[in-house]
Amino acid sequence: MAAIARKSAAPAAAKGKFDAEVDVIIIGSGVAGLATALFSCWHGNKVLLLEKASQLGGTTRKAAFWYWVPNNAAMRAAGTKDPKKDCIAYMARLSRPEIYNPHAPHFGVPAWEYSHYEAIYDNASTATELLSKKSALEYRHCDFVPDYWAELPEDKAPNGRVLLPKDARETMSDGGEVAIRSMSGAAKRDGVDIRTGHRVQRLVSNSAGEVIGVEADTAKGKKRFLARKAVVFCTGGFTHDVELRKNYLSAPVYGGCAARSNEGDFIYIAGAVGAQLRNMNYAWMCPIVFEKAMARDPGLIGTFSPSGDSMIYVNKEGRRVANEKLAYNEMAQVFFQWDGARSEYPNLLLMAVWDQRSQDHSASDEYGRFIVPPGTDDAHVIKGATLAALSKAIRDRLERYKGVTGGLTLAPDFEKTLAATIARFNGFASGGKDLDFQRGERQVELLFNGSVAPSPSASNPTMFPISEEGPYYAALLTGGNLDTKGGPKTNVSGQVVDDQDKPIAGLYGVGNCVASASARAYWAGGATIGPILAFSYLAAAAANKERKKLAK
Amino acid sequence: MAAIARKSAAPAAAKGKFDAEVDVIIIGSGVAGLATALFSCWHGNKVLLLEKASQLGGTTRKAAFWYWVPNNAAMRAAGTKDPKKDCIAYMARLSRPEIYNPHAPHFGVPAWEYSHYEAIYDNASTATELLSKKSALEYRHCDFVPDYWAELPEDKAPNGRVLLPKDARETMSDGGEVAIRSMSGAAKRDGVDIRTGHRVQRLVSNSAGEVIGVEADTAKGKKRFLARKAVVFCTGGFTHDVELRKNYLSAPVYGGCAARSNEGDFIYIAGAVGAQLRNMNYAWMCPIVFEKAMARDPGLIGTFSPSGDSMIYVNKEGRRVANEKLAYNEMAQVFFQWDGARSEYPNLLLMAVWDQRSQDHSASDEYGRFIVPPGTDDAHVIKGATLAALSKAIRDRLERYKGVTGGLTLAPDFEKTLAATIARFNGFASGGKDLDFQRGERQVELLFNGSVAPSPSASNPTMFPISEEGPYYAALLTGGNLDTKGGPKTNVSGQVVDDQDKPIAGLYGVGNCVASASARAYWAGGATIGPILAFSYLAAAAANKERKKLAK
Repeated sequence: MAAIARKSAAPAAAKGKFDAEVDVIIIGSGVAGLATALFSCWHGNKVLLLEKASQLGGTTRKAAFWYWVPNNAAMRAAGTKDPKKDCIAYMARLSRPEIYNPHAPHFGVPAWEYSHYEAIYDNASTATELLSKKSALEYRHCDFVPDYWAELPEDKAPNGRVLLPKDARETMSDGGEVAIRSMSGAAKRDGVDIRTGHRVQRLVSNSAGEVIGVEADTAKGKKRFLARKAVVFCTGGFTHDVELRKNYLSAPVYGGCAARSNEGDFIYIAGAVGAQLRNMNYAWMCPIVFEKAMARDPGLIGTFSPSGDSMIYVNKEGRRVANEKLAYNEMAQVFFQWDGARSEYPNLLLMAVWDQRSQDHSASDEYGRFIVPPGTDDAHVIKGATLAALSKAIRDRLERYKGVTGGLTLAPDFEKTLAATIARFNGFASGGKDLDFQRGERQVELLFNGSVAPSPSASNPTMFPISEEGPYYAALLTGGNLDTKGGPKTNVSGQVVDDQDKPIAGLYGVGNCVASASARAYWAGGATIGPILAFSYLAAAAANKERKKLAK
Repeated sequence: MAAIARKSAAPAAAKGKFDAEVDVIIIGSGVAGLATALFSCWHGNKVLLLEKASQLGGTTRKAAFWYWVPNNAAMRAAGTKDPKKDCIAYMARLSRPEIYNPHAPHFGVPAWEYSHYEAIYDNASTATELLSKKSALEYRHCDFVPDYWAELPEDKAPNGRVLLPKDARETMSDGGEVAIRSMSGAAKRDGVDIRTGHRVQRLVSNSAGEVIGVEADTAKGKKRFLARKAVVFCTGGFTHDVELRKNYLSAPVYGGCAARSNEGDFIYIAGAVGAQLRNMNYAWMCPIVFEKAMARDPGLIGTFSPSGDSMIYVNKEGRRVANEKLAYNEMAQVFFQWDGARSEYPNLLLMAVWDQRSQDHSASDEYGRFIVPPGTDDAHVIKGATLAALSKAIRDRLERYKGVTGGLTLAPDFEKTLAATIARFNGFASGGKDLDFQRGERQVELLFNGSVAPSPSASNPTMFPISEEGPYYAALLTGGNLDTKGGPKTNVSGQVVDDQDKPIAGLYGVGNCVASASARAYWAGGATIGPILAFSYLAAAAANKERKKLAK
């Protein structure tokens, strides 16, 4: 990532010369940027794509790149029904649970959100098929993958909506690399002008107040680019801007696995031209390894797969507080439960604790697992020959971070409580039934359970008694973002709107840099990327129809 | 409130005639507006105050108007020590518990917040004394009132920081009426031009981009006003703008007790000139009577005093989930605990349940109590001769609201669980010790306990066994706002800053319409108004020093 600092986002006037003139400028080279560039280009537009970092791909490159496409072609071919009304009910129910009303118009959710759900349902598959047909992104159908809330009555198509880049490996973890390679290859092939190391700082507006370009800082100085039709931001969220996180998110997250260049640039840039912001309080969330976040590790991956059967999470008192195998977006929120009686986040850090069995059989360097194989960086792993030694080691490790955790320490009787917690868990594991948190009872939990020892508890492969003998292992976990969900409000054509819901002429946004209608929800694996393809498709179509604007 | 709709906030150009020309324009007539107007006027400025509603006073008129003034003159006179460093530590600890660090510079909180805590400590008393000396707001010292976290080791002055308008009644509940009468009287006396029914829609900027006035809509059409020195917004938060609540707050509140005119006007107006927003996720919170919020009752007062000793709150399953006597800001957050395993807010509504004893001895129409005396509007009270009848009546009442509560209903065995909950609570009440939630163990709980029957449990007056015989009563509660805390970021002089932390020339804000550095915290009763007086004082001083601007 180029170390070019953010400067004023106040829009620049049109006067002065431009370094390039095109029809459509795209900012950002993750899936949203590349897809919008491709679709724009296929409409016959001259397209310039600017990327702040030195490498293409943004957060997408780090993603598994599952993509959630309701009623996709493979489902239709297989005869799997995915009725529009039910699919939208599923999206609405999970996004706005507190106002969801199955009997109300729009299921009780705001018209804006409903319109976005419809747009996703109606366009994600069309976009997917076009990308595939043009050999920009071919896919394979993962019909065995369940939605994260497959058990809800609203989910009439609980399996079948998830696709994956065709050439991704068997474990489905490297889809992002594959997709970025494939899509950026197609973009170059089809004539998209791609430039890295360009940090867009502000818009250029003409005298009518229309957006007609951008100014970017590069290692070689300031550049100005003219967009005759539209500027489309696809710059990701604000996961790595501490101030924005503090001021908008509903939880005090320590970071996340978005690309380090996701610093909320578009919040500042669009804000400076009067964009309305929306859903600023929400994020795509996942547990993260706390010490990797503290180290600002650019390779940080969210703990999508909480592997290990003889493994539990305990809080500073030594108690389990949740089902460890909860889908990642839901698990992440457990860390931010607030205790008003004590004015503290009692679960701000949880300690994953496991034994040699899980270490031997459930280690992997994929999906952000905290149980890692020998030879991998394991600086985050705390070890102890006995529970007493492990407790002491955890206590010592926490001491290092006291200044940034509000002084979080283990309770004096942590070790004793931990032993009791393990005994109770072991009873549940032997019986196959978690009477406290129902671990292992939902489909998504099995999907992310990872490898376990060859002879797991027959009835529930997510649990196995933790050994009475050491060594034991632990890792500090907290909640983080994949990326944020809030940003300028767009209509379904991707046009950014002002305080009166009127489009700001020439300005578009797609992806995590603009508001997501998913609010609280993580509908399924790929619920980020599938909808992005739909909106890239719609934004490119609308941008293509824009009249050319006066450059003064 | 005048029913003038919000229109475009895009700033207007200077050209055209003005209906009045003054030095300083103040928008809003709550405590922030009146205090800033008074201080400005005492600097010798010509001041115009515009109020959107038909009545002066905004939210302040509904408030008890306790004001929290660290190291105030009465404390100093009494020899009560309130060291600055400890007072700021107390503020920091509660505002940002997750990063508070007693050993770090600024206690680990951002420099911006620290600077605001300092400004409060250094100026609230000065402002208070000046208002008193000028007979605009005389006070009495409530040295018996504890801070809400009086037990924290950081609180070295747990009693004595709270003041009250001198002529407020014995129960201290009508301070707002008294203060507005007194302050607006002084403003008129001292020549402030006060106009109601003026909805400011947008700023007026000169060609240098400086703010030089406002445009307002009135029943008699559009008016334009020139401010030679400064425009100061004191327009309150966004409690009554559903869209802003949804897009920014960390909890899905149903409303609150702010004046109905608090619709976030300044978010739109300042946003249109590139103001940076801050702490948008936080609010001053309190439980509210759900049905009053649903009825959009303009007289809604937060449940500051959860009165009744033979009274408990239960959730839809019939279980207690919190200490009912928790200070209101903390109690309110209990309603928004999230259950990720079920994708629901299990406590979104809690049912307060009480018996005839509490009805007879703890009823009052002050401080938003839900136990109200005969002859008062009790539409929110649900009654039943037996627990079975009460349960049935609650069930029926909830049915009415299913469409706006995500279908919230009582669990099938609610009645049985409620009976068991009451039995357990009664045991605690008899012994004077709440083993589940420590009810009655903190000073603030006694402060707000209200009247109880003449012979309460000797050791703990907050608890008494609920009668085994009916009638029983219930009320639906949820969490709400006093008002919101987020808005444009200001420096300690009240100047609104842009994305580069540079003041937007001529634009100021004070009170709930701008960002509060208190973040999560409610330090004490009056922690809203005390700091507002400090910032009114500072903003007026800075505005007074502004050079006069070109009106073109």
